[in-house]
Amino acid sequence: MQNPIPDYLHEVLDALRDDTSGERASYIPELADADPDKFALAVTTAMGSTYTAGDAQDEFTIQSISKPFAYAAVIMDRGLSHVLEHIGVEPSGEAFNELSLEDGTNRPKNPMINAGAIAVHGLLVGEEATGAQRVDRVLELFSRLAGRQLSIDEEVFASELGTADHNLSMAHMLRKHKIIADDPHEVVSGYTRQCSILVTVADLSAMAATLANGGVQPCTGERIMDSAIAQQVMSVMAVAGMYDGAGDWLTRVGIPAKSGVAGGLVGVLPDQVGIGAFSPRLDSHGNSQRSRLAFERLSTDMGMHLFAPSPGRLDVIDVRRSGVRETFHLQGNVQFTAAAELLDLMAESDYGEEVHIDISRAFSFTDVARRMTLEGLRRLRDEGRRVFLHDPLQSLADPDLGDGTYPETP
Amino acid sequence: MQNPIPDYLHEVLDALRDDTSGERASYIPELADADPDKFALAVTTAMGSTYTAGDAQDEFTIQSISKPFAYAAVIMDRGLSHVLEHIGVEPSGEAFNELSLEDGTNRPKNPMINAGAIAVHGLLVGEEATGAQRVDRVLELFSRLAGRQLSIDEEVFASELGTADHNLSMAHMLRKHKIIADDPHEVVSGYTRQCSILVTVADLSAMAATLANGGVQPCTGERIMDSAIAQQVMSVMAVAGMYDGAGDWLTRVGIPAKSGVAGGLVGVLPDQVGIGAFSPRLDSHGNSQRSRLAFERLSTDMGMHLFAPSPGRLDVIDVRRSGVRETFHLQGNVQFTAAAELLDLMAESDYGEEVHIDISRAFSFTDVARRMTLEGLRRLRDEGRRVFLHDPLQSLADPDLGDGTYPETP
Amino acid sequence: MQNPIPDYLHEVLDALRDDTSGERASYIPELADADPDKFALAVTTAMGSTYTAGDAQDEFTIQSISKPFAYAAVIMDRGLSHVLEHIGVEPSGEAFNELSLEDGTNRPKNPMINAGAIAVHGLLVGEEATGAQRVDRVLELFSRLAGRQLSIDEEVFASELGTADHNLSMAHMLRKHKIIADDPHEVVSGYTRQCSILVTVADLSAMAATLANGGVQPCTGERIMDSAIAQQVMSVMAVAGMYDGAGDWLTRVGIPAKSGVAGGLVGVLPDQVGIGAFSPRLDSHGNSQRSRLAFERLSTDMGMHLFAPSPGRLDVIDVRRSGVRETFHLQGNVQFTAAAELLDLMAESDYGEEVHIDISRAFSFTDVARRMTLEGLRRLRDEGRRVFLHDPLQSLADPDLGDGTYPETP
Amino acid sequence: MQNPIPDYLHEVLDALRDDTSGERASYIPELADADPDKFALAVTTAMGSTYTAGDAQDEFTIQSISKPFAYAAVIMDRGLSHVLEHIGVEPSGEAFNELSLEDGTNRPKNPMINAGAIAVHGLLVGEEATGAQRVDRVLELFSRLAGRQLSIDEEVFASELGTADHNLSMAHMLRKHKIIADDPHEVVSGYTRQCSILVTVADLSAMAATLANGGVQPCTGERIMDSAIAQQVMSVMAVAGMYDGAGDWLTRVGIPAKSGVAGGLVGVLPDQVGIGAFSPRLDSHGNSQRSRLAFERLSTDMGMHLFAPSPGRLDVIDVRRSGVRETFHLQGNVQFTAAAELLDLMAESDYGEEVHIDISRAFSFTDVARRMTLEGLRRLRDEGRRVFLHDPLQSLADPDLGDGTYPETP
Repeated sequence: MQNPIPDYLHEVLDALRDDTSGERASYIPELADADPDKFALAVTTAMGSTYTAGDAQDEFTIQSISKPFAYAAVIMDRGLSHVLEHIGVEPSGEAFNELSLEDGTNRPKNPMINAGAIAVHGLLVGEEATGAQRVDRVLELFSRLAGRQLSIDEEVFASELGTADHNLSMAHMLRKHKIIADDPHEVVSGYTRQCSILVTVADLSAMAATLANGGVQPCTGERIMDSAIAQQVMSVMAVAGMYDGAGDWLTRVGIPAKSGVAGGLVGVLPDQVGIGAFSPRLDSHGNSQRSRLAFERLSTDMGMHLFAPSPGRLDVIDVRRSGVRETFHLQGNVQFTAAAELLDLMAESDYGEEVHIDISRAFSFTDVARRMTLEGLRRLRDEGRRVFLHDPLQSLADPDLGDGTYPETP
Repeated sequence: MQNPIPDYLHEVLDALRDDTSGERASYIPELADADPDKFALAVTTAMGSTYTAGDAQDEFTIQSISKPFAYAAVIMDRGLSHVLEHIGVEPSGEAFNELSLEDGTNRPKNPMINAGAIAVHGLLVGEEATGAQRVDRVLELFSRLAGRQLSIDEEVFASELGTADHNLSMAHMLRKHKIIADDPHEVVSGYTRQCSILVTVADLSAMAATLANGGVQPCTGERIMDSAIAQQVMSVMAVAGMYDGAGDWLTRVGIPAKSGVAGGLVGVLPDQVGIGAFSPRLDSHGNSQRSRLAFERLSTDMGMHLFAPSPGRLDVIDVRRSGVRETFHLQGNVQFTAAAELLDLMAESDYGEEVHIDISRAFSFTDVARRMTLEGLRRLRDEGRRVFLHDPLQSLADPDLGDGTYPETP
Repeated sequence: MQNPIPDYLHEVLDALRDDTSGERASYIPELADADPDKFALAVTTAMGSTYTAGDAQDEFTIQSISKPFAYAAVIMDRGLSHVLEHIGVEPSGEAFNELSLEDGTNRPKNPMINAGAIAVHGLLVGEEATGAQRVDRVLELFSRLAGRQLSIDEEVFASELGTADHNLSMAHMLRKHKIIADDPHEVVSGYTRQCSILVTVADLSAMAATLANGGVQPCTGERIMDSAIAQQVMSVMAVAGMYDGAGDWLTRVGIPAKSGVAGGLVGVLPDQVGIGAFSPRLDSHGNSQRSRLAFERLSTDMGMHLFAPSPGRLDVIDVRRSGVRETFHLQGNVQFTAAAELLDLMAESDYGEEVHIDISRAFSFTDVARRMTLEGLRRLRDEGRRVFLHDPLQSLADPDLGDGTYPETP
Repeated sequence: MQNPIPDYLHEVLDALRDDTSGERASYIPELADADPDKFALAVTTAMGSTYTAGDAQDEFTIQSISKPFAYAAVIMDRGLSHVLEHIGVEPSGEAFNELSLEDGTNRPKNPMINAGAIAVHGLLVGEEATGAQRVDRVLELFSRLAGRQLSIDEEVFASELGTADHNLSMAHMLRKHKIIADDPHEVVSGYTRQCSILVTVADLSAMAATLANGGVQPCTGERIMDSAIAQQVMSVMAVAGMYDGAGDWLTRVGIPAKSGVAGGLVGVLPDQVGIGAFSPRLDSHGNSQRSRLAFERLSTDMGMHLFAPSPGRLDVIDVRRSGVRETFHLQGNVQFTAAAELLDLMAESDYGEEVHIDISRAFSFTDVARRMTLEGLRRLRDEGRRVFLHDPLQSLADPDLGDGTYPETP
């Protein structure tokens, strides 16, 4: 059987291919001369499957899409609180090249505008880091996120460095306010190399899927960052990823995203997928026109929206009574809500001498759900009942009831 | 057994009760004279269980917390596109009382700042609506959201109307720009009544849980709004609910929320819970000091964060081969990611004459997962294999393969 | 002989009459239906001569041109320091209808934007003033400034009041911040009447000439305000009169000015002239197109610019020595500069026993020049010389040398 | 006799010497270590007399006070229209280091903020100018304005260049927008040298007096710039010289001025004086505390205010009739106002056959007054009367009546 997902992605591309509106970026010849008809799409699931369509083999420079991933790098390198002292997390309501810094703190408002991204780059690795070390750091990290060795387009780098007055302006301002310490020209040079890393749409979708998957690269299985860092990066993408149209994007499309001037667009839905798209023509906001439309389509067709409704739940807790035994069968992903329902049922429970929890069909527990379940068992036991846990898959690691005792095994 | 969830909520209150920093709102005597020591917390799950702690019987005026729910009402009444023409969805990066309207459109930036909320109230019901009808509309809707009949505090209303210059100023500006059509004093009077509706923390948690539950009030079971409207409201709360600290709140706490000047705070986590808190002393941003801390604690302790990592997944698809039959067993909530994995396995499948899908242990399917599963079956049948669906719970309504035919029943 | 000044003014009108660009104000029918071809110009000198050309008999509503004169009124009524506590003097860099108030003080930025002008009106007369008293006050003052009894166009007033949402919005905001105390609708009603006062171009030029003349109406000879108030009003017109193009106007035209939406334009050059112009079509900034061009022409043709170069000076001090007598002959207007030169000459003087100052040809002394001259005489006398003052026109009132003694009369 | 003006200036210094509030600039050691007690004042009249008091021999770096004079230089070098295309003239309402450029044009808002001053420096001399040529240009011009050869403090220059990140930031931004073409570091280096030129208070007062005197250095008699350029520079100082307090300064003090971070302050009153002051401690706005107070005192004590009232005028036109002769005697400075009065009298004149104008006691004519007088004579002659001009001092160069004929000489 041929997998219908790539077919669906092809359909998306075909439906949008006729839209030739917008213009390629023109400030350097390498972007101005890009083939405007290129169009590619990739989806990587949090389980590690990648689907592509269109010009998925084509490499393009990552540009501003590097910002969320470099932000992840600097939090790994310097710690979140250090990073927050230097770069804020508020939406800017402004274009990408806004110069103004936060009143009082002089921090760039967030790491998604250029001022913040330059600050991020300047803080990479550590206080005494050289420019080369910072570039090596992002190239190494991005390669692990993509699952393959990436490289830098030196021609794009050289061209961009020749038109870097805006970024140099901001870097000098950042040094003035002691946000960065190194030479502004060295930092901008490094940041420009970061933006010149070559990627495909599948690289982008894999990088984003790592965030979606809580920091574990879903194809290689490598844990690249703590889940708290992935959470921070996705949160900032949600409020500040699409510059001055953050609210419109989050309500309408609902996929935290980041675009690049070469035509790339990356998006992430937590626990679900990373998405990459590429098409060089840009709309008036500087976002890839067809990539943006492809995202809108995925959101609408596939219900891929941060606040999309989940399907109605079936009974996930089944209570059976037989002899002295009352058994609670749990099913599915057990989060706070389900654990709360279990505790409700337990609180009313007075059937027999034994209480059994059967979680053989529950394939996951959040940490809070695990603690709630064990607390319920502890209380029931304290009321004089015998408590049993049926957990053949060992979904509940170390089911200590909080006092060094454990439920019985049926 | 005593339910440990209320115990946990009590622990939260006890841990924070000593924080007496902040001041009550002072602009009207009713708020200035509120008992500053009141403190209450409530959680309602998307399944309809409500847990409370503290002064949960105390009523207080809903104030700005009315904004997201009135926004839901106006979208129901006038349609989303009509509402978007009049009120934007961008973060304001500004305080609640910001006057400025969007350049070009003259729309208030979003429905969470006062200008937007007054516009929302003025658009309620329909073009020819009277002031009384608009007030009736919100009181009726809020009552259904809370699951009980609510009432208006007429003394607070009268006091606030006497200090309404700021809102009157905005209402005149809105009429000037034809955002509202009715008399500005009538609209502000109605909006002030809307803000004077009395609620408890459990009312707030139930109202928010209705959003979390995709528009269905989880206690009464009533579908109050389309899930698309709940999605819109939660999205806007995420970007603009906490005024000028939206980014800090979304990254650190991660619970889309809205506060009121009487000390209330409401929050929502999609598919999981609605949360209500109450404590009259306000911090320097005008948010209830202890309510805010309670939310931070819930986020940290309970992993209640929009971008919180889910637990690692176990195998949800189990493939068994026996004789001519290859069976795919699905388990849990089946969303895009799991359906994609199923299609991957189907695409590689070439074992025998029969393909069986057993979804007896899958307790829910998203719509896209349902369509993906049926499309996979269609393709396998087109390749000449016999396809069977084992769905004793009828999780897949109408499993039409797309051409009027159905899979066989085993 | 026919006076060439009106001829010159006619030439200006004729040269500009073909410019029919711009549009009449359209927000009320009375302005929308004004005869667009009307065009008039008037100049009143600080000595009281008035010259007119074109439709100088036509009355039109004064509109925003009322602002500087109402500002003069409120300073007379309440004192400058009280007024400065409520309304600032900084250029706004913004359009006439800017809402924002100064951070910290909540004052409107200046009395030339609507917010400031409404505050000015609301402060007129005194704390307990009624709306009618405030309107009477401006009508009475404007009439004395114009030198004739003015009246109010009640139809324009009624129409404008029907479209006053913007001003009502600001008035509510001003009351919120306690800048005004009275009912916002009462204040806006009064302010709208103030704007509906009917004037001709000659009324405007006479009103401005009163400022130019240091507060004395040059035709009637009445001192209407202290010169310090005229100084304050002209200063504020210079920095904030032309809204967001203040710098362009002051550098290029150099005549502190104020325009009105009915097509009027008033300007003032200290010590020289007041100018009034009228033509209903407005440019894109809301200023009368042809009136603006007429001012530019006057500035260029006539050297009417605040910083225009004065001609090279001839010798104004003539020293003659004869016998025991050294005589200093002064000529012209004696200001600081000339008095300084006199003191230089006195400091070097050692010719004879007698020092004579002859000011029979000096037609005016500034106060500082008077004090400098008398101080020089005192010092020379203290050195043992006899000092004489020849002042047949009594240009120096009370030439006390500072110690109760006087110079001798020759 | 000892000249009382220096005594007066000493009194001003003595009255203010006890004010030791404020702090020296601290960003470079040379300023941080300046003797904080230095205090000096100088006044140069438009006739070329200079009076000083205090530490008038002390040199300090000119810093931002260089801005208006460099602005004069660039207008001389490139023409006003070219300069206006690159740098605006609007008040900024912002601090000296504001980064933002005008929407649409990307021009710095005015030449008094750093961004504008750097643009001014970068445009000096001509398109192909080197950095050294630009520095030579300002040093040469400033020396001629001061009337003596100035020099550069190389230590201050070196220190400031080490803390130039803010200016480098702006210079890169200016090159991005093609406001400057040369290397940003070269331009900032040159601008920093411009700011490091050493001056005394008398240098400053002489430089400003050149502006007051319409472009002619009043001590050396050299015409340094067209009067139109001096007019432009003084106008811009009036609207933008004191940064964000422009309106307060212009209304209260009324002396267009510019301050420098080393403690200098320069001011100009057209036709009257240039003023220089120096005291290193700065107030919270970055202006020299005691220098500012000295200016306020001069304004109040001496009536030195742009809009200060002039003294009441005596009769400046005296009409005498005798035999066939009617004689108009003119006296003083004849500007538009007086010439207008003359034309009024001429228009009513019908006494005898001869009309005589006696201007032997009028010591100056503005160009427009000269043209008005001659036009009046022409019209009277055209009516058949004989016209005579008595002008022994040749105040009216070339009294051509407009048709090649001249008035008779009595």
